Amino acid sequence: MADNTILIKNALILNPENNIEGKKDLLIKNDLIDEIADEIPEDKADKIIDATDKILLPGLVNTHTHLSMTLFRGLADDLALDEWLNENIWPVEANLNGYYCYIGALLGAVELIKSGTTTFSDMYFYMEDVAKAVDESGLRAVLSYGMIDFGDEEKRKAEIEENMNLFKNCNDTADGRIKVFFGPHSPYTASEELLKEVRRLADETGIGIHIHVSETQKEIDDVSAEKGLRPFEYLDSIGLLGPDVVCAHSVWLSDREIEIIKEKDVKISHNPCSNMKLASGIAPVSKLLENDICVAIGTDGASSNNNLDLIEELKTASLLQKVATLDPKVLTSDEAVAMGTINGARALGLDDEIGTVEVGKKADLILIDTNCANMVPDSSNLSSNIIYAANGSNVDTTICNGQILMENKELTTLDEQEIYQKAREAIDQLKKAI
Amino acid sequence: MADNTILIKNALILNPENNIEGKKDLLIKNDLIDEIADEIPEDKADKIIDATDKILLPGLVNTHTHLSMTLFRGLADDLALDEWLNENIWPVEANLNGYYCYIGALLGAVELIKSGTTTFSDMYFYMEDVAKAVDESGLRAVLSYGMIDFGDEEKRKAEIEENMNLFKNCNDTADGRIKVFFGPHSPYTASEELLKEVRRLADETGIGIHIHVSETQKEIDDVSAEKGLRPFEYLDSIGLLGPDVVCAHSVWLSDREIEIIKEKDVKISHNPCSNMKLASGIAPVSKLLENDICVAIGTDGASSNNNLDLIEELKTASLLQKVATLDPKVLTSDEAVAMGTINGARALGLDDEIGTVEVGKKADLILIDTNCANMVPDSSNLSSNIIYAANGSNVDTTICNGQILMENKELTTLDEQEIYQKAREAIDQLKKAI
Ligand SMILES: [Zn+2]
Ligand SMILES: [Zn+2]
Repeated sequence: MADNTILIKNALILNPENNIEGKKDLLIKNDLIDEIADEIPEDKADKIIDATDKILLPGLVNTHTHLSMTLFRGLADDLALDEWLNENIWPVEANLNGYYCYIGALLGAVELIKSGTTTFSDMYFYMEDVAKAVDESGLRAVLSYGMIDFGDEEKRKAEIEENMNLFKNCNDTADGRIKVFFGPHSPYTASEELLKEVRRLADETGIGIHIHVSETQKEIDDVSAEKGLRPFEYLDSIGLLGPDVVCAHSVWLSDREIEIIKEKDVKISHNPCSNMKLASGIAPVSKLLENDICVAIGTDGASSNNNLDLIEELKTASLLQKVATLDPKVLTSDEAVAMGTINGARALGLDDEIGTVEVGKKADLILIDTNCANMVPDSSNLSSNIIYAANGSNVDTTICNGQILMENKELTTLDEQEIYQKAREAIDQLKKAI
Repeated sequence: MADNTILIKNALILNPENNIEGKKDLLIKNDLIDEIADEIPEDKADKIIDATDKILLPGLVNTHTHLSMTLFRGLADDLALDEWLNENIWPVEANLNGYYCYIGALLGAVELIKSGTTTFSDMYFYMEDVAKAVDESGLRAVLSYGMIDFGDEEKRKAEIEENMNLFKNCNDTADGRIKVFFGPHSPYTASEELLKEVRRLADETGIGIHIHVSETQKEIDDVSAEKGLRPFEYLDSIGLLGPDVVCAHSVWLSDREIEIIKEKDVKISHNPCSNMKLASGIAPVSKLLENDICVAIGTDGASSNNNLDLIEELKTASLLQKVATLDPKVLTSDEAVAMGTINGARALGLDDEIGTVEVGKKADLILIDTNCANMVPDSSNLSSNIIYAANGSNVDTTICNGQILMENKELTTLDEQEIYQKAREAIDQLKKAI
């Protein structure tokens, strides 16, 4: 088979750390970035993309979501977390099946591609159906099964088996675009025994761990009451924490917990819109960054956000830190770009492959059009324009693993109108089933 | 001349207070909404717009901006207010002229139309040039000249004369779309004498007042040190406050000041993105709303935001209140829609004319396309989908005063590419002149 070759001409490359290289050409060969140079001849590629007036940056990395929950967008809002979960989300979730999760994941995939995300990390149920959606969409994903045992031994075994089966069936599938992690849901829904078994298996297999930790003050109170320790202290005491653990939320942190996170090189997935919308609290992100802790970004599910726009999420992250600390210099636009790209790659253990625009890395790339009302004038500070002025709708072209998923805002792998229709039918059926 | 008639078919009308009327037809005759009914015959109009799958709502009202400053987007970021103003904004402003302000206003107008704002309230310099841009764009505006005297009597007279000339030359021009307000800049830049003279003239002429109040803690300290009173107490003590006064920001408020605002029926323009980005603080909006105070929304200038997307601003407003109060039930999506429409109209004294979709009101209307990745599924709660999931890019059609300014995302009154080009040249020249 002939090589897949794509030449992107005249792109303004923005790497994390605001490393602007001026206008460059970039050659993709198969799944990889093959060459970056001032001028690459057109006859080296089968497909040419003119990136004049466009910023090229690494595909964005959403480190915490529940993609199938895109079906539940707008299902219930303006509620407290427990009321939202118990009375609204869990009743519809009770009727989920593999098909609904597949459609929900496809709907989310359309939105991810359109807003410039090329890699996402997911935790949910029916994950083999989500894997099918990932395969079809062309996206890159880290998938984990959300394990909940509430201390029940039989349930625990079944949950771990489910996650291990996901690993056996899906890890490294879809041309290597899918990786599988363990997904123990949280320290208050997964028992100590489950968490210890996950750690043992992770050490044995090298599988990473994706978990919710310290989302609400109630969680801190509950874990403290039960274990006599705050959540990160508790997780550390049972040996769960390490560089292969990605903790979503991590809103309520003591100084001692920040030390633990730093010592154990735990990765944090910050989810500001969800934390604000559910009134969970403000994570001390600028303090984490000061401590050189790897903080990545996530949208959480669309049902508590209510979209998957990572550029909007990064703006919110930056602005929220500034006002929370009353210091406008924290979480700069450069740091936000890093959070959305290379920090996400590091969190998922994929920084050898993605997260920067570099020869030898996977061709996970997006183009952002600057010739738009909200992007003029083009500041010399590209990261500022992307983080503070743009949103996902400014993304023009999305490429993952060397495959074009969207060009000039037109999807190539998915039929969006068909997916919208099926998604509407799915949520209607789910609501009726309650 | 024949009547201008436009028939919008099959629109899902969303009025503030989440009053969904089901699918309706709406007839525009000249500048007014003439009829709303289940079915209006097509032969009643010269122009038909099919609004299937679209939500129709009142044009959004941006109650505080400095439109010409759109030129300064991304000029300086991640800085404290004083450093941002003194070292970055004021040096370029020193070289502004009428032409630059006109181009900046046109650039801003393109962005307003594209993101669904039909009315904006502006305070800046060279306001007759801004008025020219408003006239050409087809937008509705309340324009005020930013008066600053720092206690200098001669300057004071000249500033007031400038604002009065703006009134004489521009009020009620552009087919009545332009109103003029007084724009005393703030209690720390405008003297007590200036503010008292503004109040006297406002009483005499009925001209409204637009002012920045209580943006930063420094302002509270400075005013308190000079006057022995907090800013709203001081403004009340000199008789400035009344129902015709719109105060931008109003971040730092004592309970006594909230009482004063309520008693005097002062209108508040909340600017969350600017307050977050400059780390000014979090306005107690949910407390103001509990007190039945009219809180409207504003973007402030694009240079401290960095866009003019009012839907994004409303989402930020809602999420920020939820997390600041740790109560997810405050500032609901319904309340946010009201802030962006009817509350804005009330703040500007235009609620008889705009702010709701009602027969007899001006035809200031927008259509939001729900058939988009970030809007599916269509929740039965339209306001949730608009505030939490959408952004300005979902606006499809913008109509002001019965004139179509954008249809299917194509502008009709302004040439965007030409404006982008002129805006880029303008900021380049301004930067060189420093
Ligand atoms: Zn989550
Ligand atoms: Zn302002």
